Amino acid sequence: MNAIARLLSPRSVAVVGASADATKMTGRPVGYLRKHGFTGEIYPVNPRVSEIGGLTCYPDIASLPRAPDAAIVLLGPDRAEAAVRDLAARGTAAAIVLASGYGEADAEGARRQQALKTAAGSMRLLGPNTIGLVNLTDRITLSATGALEMGNLRAGSISVVSQSGGILGSLLSRATDRGIGFAKLASTGNEADLDSTDLIEHLLDDEATRVIAVYMEGLRRPEVFRQVALRAAAIGKPIVIFKVGRSESGARSASSHTGAMAGSDRVYDALFRQCGVIRAETFADLLDIPAALATGRRAVGRRVAILTSTGGAGTLVADSLGLAGFAVPVPDDATAQRIGTLTGEPASAARNPVDVTLAGLRSDILRGTLDALQESPSYDATVVIVGSSSLAQPSLVADAVVECQARSEKPILCYVSPHAPEVTRLLNGQGIPAFTAPESCAAALAALQPRPAPAAAVPETALVDPNIAALPPGPLNEAESKALFARFGLPAAREVVVQDAAGTEAAARGLGERVVLKVLSRALLHKSDLGGVAVGLSAEALPAAATVMLERLRAAGAPPPEGFLVQEMVRGGVEMILGFHRDAQLGPVLLLGMGGVTAELLQDTALRLLPITRPDAEGLVAELRTGALLRGYRGGPPADVPALVDAILAFAAMAGAAGERLLEAEINPLFVLPEGQGVLAADGLAVLG
Amino acid sequence: MNAIARLLSPRSVAVVGASADATKMTGRPVGYLRKHGFTGEIYPVNPRVSEIGGLTCYPDIASLPRAPDAAIVLLGPDRAEAAVRDLAARGTAAAIVLASGYGEADAEGARRQQALKTAAGSMRLLGPNTIGLVNLTDRITLSATGALEMGNLRAGSISVVSQSGGILGSLLSRATDRGIGFAKLASTGNEADLDSTDLIEHLLDDEATRVIAVYMEGLRRPEVFRQVALRAAAIGKPIVIFKVGRSESGARSASSHTGAMAGSDRVYDALFRQCGVIRAETFADLLDIPAALATGRRAVGRRVAILTSTGGAGTLVADSLGLAGFAVPVPDDATAQRIGTLTGEPASAARNPVDVTLAGLRSDILRGTLDALQESPSYDATVVIVGSSSLAQPSLVADAVVECQARSEKPILCYVSPHAPEVTRLLNGQGIPAFTAPESCAAALAALQPRPAPAAAVPETALVDPNIAALPPGPLNEAESKALFARFGLPAAREVVVQDAAGTEAAARGLGERVVLKVLSRALLHKSDLGGVAVGLSAEALPAAATVMLERLRAAGAPPPEGFLVQEMVRGGVEMILGFHRDAQLGPVLLLGMGGVTAELLQDTALRLLPITRPDAEGLVAELRTGALLRGYRGGPPADVPALVDAILAFAAMAGAAGERLLEAEINPLFVLPEGQGVLAADGLAVLG
Repeated sequence: MNAIARLLSPRSVAVVGASADATKMTGRPVGYLRKHGFTGEIYPVNPRVSEIGGLTCYPDIASLPRAPDAAIVLLGPDRAEAAVRDLAARGTAAAIVLASGYGEADAEGARRQQALKTAAGSMRLLGPNTIGLVNLTDRITLSATGALEMGNLRAGSISVVSQSGGILGSLLSRATDRGIGFAKLASTGNEADLDSTDLIEHLLDDEATRVIAVYMEGLRRPEVFRQVALRAAAIGKPIVIFKVGRSESGARSASSHTGAMAGSDRVYDALFRQCGVIRAETFADLLDIPAALATGRRAVGRRVAILTSTGGAGTLVADSLGLAGFAVPVPDDATAQRIGTLTGEPASAARNPVDVTLAGLRSDILRGTLDALQESPSYDATVVIVGSSSLAQPSLVADAVVECQARSEKPILCYVSPHAPEVTRLLNGQGIPAFTAPESCAAALAALQPRPAPAAAVPETALVDPNIAALPPGPLNEAESKALFARFGLPAAREVVVQDAAGTEAAARGLGERVVLKVLSRALLHKSDLGGVAVGLSAEALPAAATVMLERLRAAGAPPPEGFLVQEMVRGGVEMILGFHRDAQLGPVLLLGMGGVTAELLQDTALRLLPITRPDAEGLVAELRTGALLRGYRGGPPADVPALVDAILAFAAMAGAAGERLLEAEINPLFVLPEGQGVLAADGLAVLG
Repeated sequence: MNAIARLLSPRSVAVVGASADATKMTGRPVGYLRKHGFTGEIYPVNPRVSEIGGLTCYPDIASLPRAPDAAIVLLGPDRAEAAVRDLAARGTAAAIVLASGYGEADAEGARRQQALKTAAGSMRLLGPNTIGLVNLTDRITLSATGALEMGNLRAGSISVVSQSGGILGSLLSRATDRGIGFAKLASTGNEADLDSTDLIEHLLDDEATRVIAVYMEGLRRPEVFRQVALRAAAIGKPIVIFKVGRSESGARSASSHTGAMAGSDRVYDALFRQCGVIRAETFADLLDIPAALATGRRAVGRRVAILTSTGGAGTLVADSLGLAGFAVPVPDDATAQRIGTLTGEPASAARNPVDVTLAGLRSDILRGTLDALQESPSYDATVVIVGSSSLAQPSLVADAVVECQARSEKPILCYVSPHAPEVTRLLNGQGIPAFTAPESCAAALAALQPRPAPAAAVPETALVDPNIAALPPGPLNEAESKALFARFGLPAAREVVVQDAAGTEAAARGLGERVVLKVLSRALLHKSDLGGVAVGLSAEALPAAATVMLERLRAAGAPPPEGFLVQEMVRGGVEMILGFHRDAQLGPVLLLGMGGVTAELLQDTALRLLPITRPDAEGLVAELRTGALLRGYRGGPPADVPALVDAILAFAAMAGAAGERLLEAEINPLFVLPEGQGVLAADGLAVLG
């Protein structure tokens, strides 16, 4: 067993700083271990008492009868470091440090955290600033969370990895109330050593874990996470993440909570998308979506039947599903007839929601109708509404649903309309996800939809040595930037570089009746702001226009430009933006955006972390809300989307080949011409470090 | 007392069709009346029994000792009509019919519903297809909802109007679990007579009601509702509505549930906005927002303090608030110092969330910190996080919050992180809104923000008689449409109408070097599709171009046009769309949209129901996501927004004056020129009935 396995499933546990007073926080862990059924050895360590609840209490770590698999350290930051050093010396596999006041607090805390890590040596460390972990598969609790006061903790197939201990406790107590069980729950806190990714990776091989739910404040090793998440997708073990830091105040709070680095939330979104992670949009989703996934069932499409005995709640769910893009079609004739015969109410049998109110809440009718809906070729899943009439007979609906579920492969979800905790527990406890928000039904069904398996990204375009080393640091001018891009196969508008104003007229030859004139300057990142771009000029007008530009630059105090660019006017096509930047936390990012001020105002852009696959590039295009413009909107010709996808991949290959030196790059506009005519970069910028 | 008042607060109640078997649905109402403390007279009516639970049971309505204030009819649709007729004859003020199988079912049901209404005569009717009503102020239950099985129903200041009985029961049971009280709850069902608007109107004058929560499937009398909602806004009694029918499947389900007419959800949204109604976005909001409003407290701004003893949940709330546009600023120096002195943790006192974990969960620290935050000039409200450490001492946090709330005018909300129903009930029961979803905190705080008082709409532009009567039915051509609009002060691009192709050249004189040529045809609503528009033509090119257009029309089988329009080319300015249509359910609607294909694809439009006020017109402009284009985006000149607002009001006045005959109208594009230069309609269409 490796150290993480020994930490999660120890046969012996040292509790350092255990108190004999069970009402104290430091008194809880020993009590919880015994209460929840831990069968291994428990070694309390406390020099001031000799016995805790009948267990021998050891004065120090050196006195322990053997090296424990795991230790939980309940000491404050002033004494935790020494305990960790002693535990490591004793050969403990892993230790949990609960105390806060480390990296999340201040510079002194960060130093203390580093010292703690050093003291641990090769021993693995969970925390500090954690509530510990709970293994319900094996009934092992290495935690002080007050949620363990509850006695009815249920083992299940959802595992939780949370950077916050409070959130772990919240999920545990909320799930217990609803009859949802867990396999393992671990709070990683400040992640001085073990981080979320380590735990997720370990859980991929945990047989009891079918779904992994993650509360995330920030990711410390995005590249490793990406590989782990891709492996999870490959083996079909879903990861559901609720990530904070979606707003500035959330990011700031997270940073002072666990010292997590934020990074841009939109880039996290892109990362999750690329590696098949399901993102929970609300905190409730973090429990609801895993509960649905834990059944192992998946919907093969978006057609949902609703079976109800209360009209309003059925309408509520139908409306929420419709809003989330699900279809709630009426039953096919055969199904409607089958239900109508059963209920004696043919009119309501031909509707969806199928309302059995008039037929009465009878077990045979519920079973028969549910079977008919599940067996119907018209539906991919059923939502059963539990109304207040089932309050008096909680098992009536639950039993029927459980029985029918066993006869079908399709998912069944329940929406519990009144406050009815008993029915909810009955259902969840028997593997039927039961929700109390109509929006949760939609979120869960969305998570059950088939999703394309993400592939590990290997740049598909062959690498070309760009001789980046030869290029100067700082911004390249437009011609240099586009020349760099062109080496990777990115076509640009035809253009000629000239040194001075006099040369511009001759340069226009062969570029069309009217051309574009631009100054070439590494010093001007936004050349049009200083009047450095003029469009629609005739060849004869160029020298004078170029002279005016030079004067303007001089007047503005700008350094002399490297020359001029005379460029063909690109006509037709859809204007787009292709960009590259580095996210402070997550690394190199590719951006595709629709051009034009309206799209810019509405921020119609899509992101992917590099490297990308061809499906990623296609996904970028598909994700734009104004993507219809590319498909030939309002009689316009369809644009050359395959060429756009190639261009995205070429740009990505360029960024990959340029490596760390490339800080920023952009093609704006990139003209996507009509089908078969390719794309043309009409401007370009690259900034090197 | 009027009939609705007697229905909601009867001193005598007939229960027609009461059963002596308390386990039957028909046995419930008498039992519930007595269980929940009704002190008036109860008259069970049932010919087969003489006594129910010690009460005299009457064989028929004629035998009742007196005319009851209210009656609840538990009979099926086959016998309900006769009972209603008898009750009306007896002089009953109002009756509730629970049975379904009426308008919501089929044509036969609709006929039956009409007969029921006729049978009621001047007696008021609630239902059919309703669960009845509950008056917790006076402890009167005229309902069969299973939620009344609960014994701990709490009186409060939220009233509920629901078209669905099931939803009423759901809200009642969920609120009871959370310690939230109600004043009155009424389910209107099919609304054969009394509808949601009647009930809402009555509740405006109900002293016990501070907030009205509405579950709505469709509005039967939008104009009356609008007046009622405006009165509610004027007297400061908030209305919170959760409306289904946001999706097609929801609208269809609502229609088969209570026979509600749908109308466009976006128009409902506009209506709610115009009359100050708060729209609940999620079903949970329908309880959470009223709970916050019921305190009577309002936030004067968006700066929120978060006080927590658990880091993760604090971060969760900070993140949700930030996402919803709230600021979570760090405390000012004086406040930070005050808190730091109290907690002995100056570092965490200078942060927000203020985390008192290290200081420990102590009553004095909680009170002192909360007072400091509430008294700080930096904050408009505080969210207190209840962590799992308060599970063991539920009243510790609750008492501190209750005490501090009394010392301040600002709102305090609580977020309860673990499953902790006891703390939640304690808090809500003492007037502190306590939520279990971080998103609810944001939704509730948003509802507590100041909102401009909506004004009743009176067209501000003087009416001009448009001689609409003289105009033919069907579409007007462009020139006729713009002439109609111009009579109300809507300026159009300069143009000349000519009869034939030959006349076009002369018509171009004075309209600039290049002009626009269009066919004038009432038969072509989309003239450009048939090549009926040409732009940028010189005067000489017009006759030939006009001849080509005529040929195209002939080839396409279109009728001969009325002539041609020669129009100036409008340059510069922002292109917009101004439109008018009639919503099937809600009536005349004005639309303002950004022009151009991108905005069209992203549906950047805003709606208002007519008539509108000047603030409504300004609101339309402010609501557009691309409104920045009007404010001088990217160095462009600011557009003439006052002229745009005038144009919107003129268009609204035109629609008002045209009355029922106007079916549809549009100006597309409407050029909004730079500041001081006004607007110009460059096309126009009006369709008359």
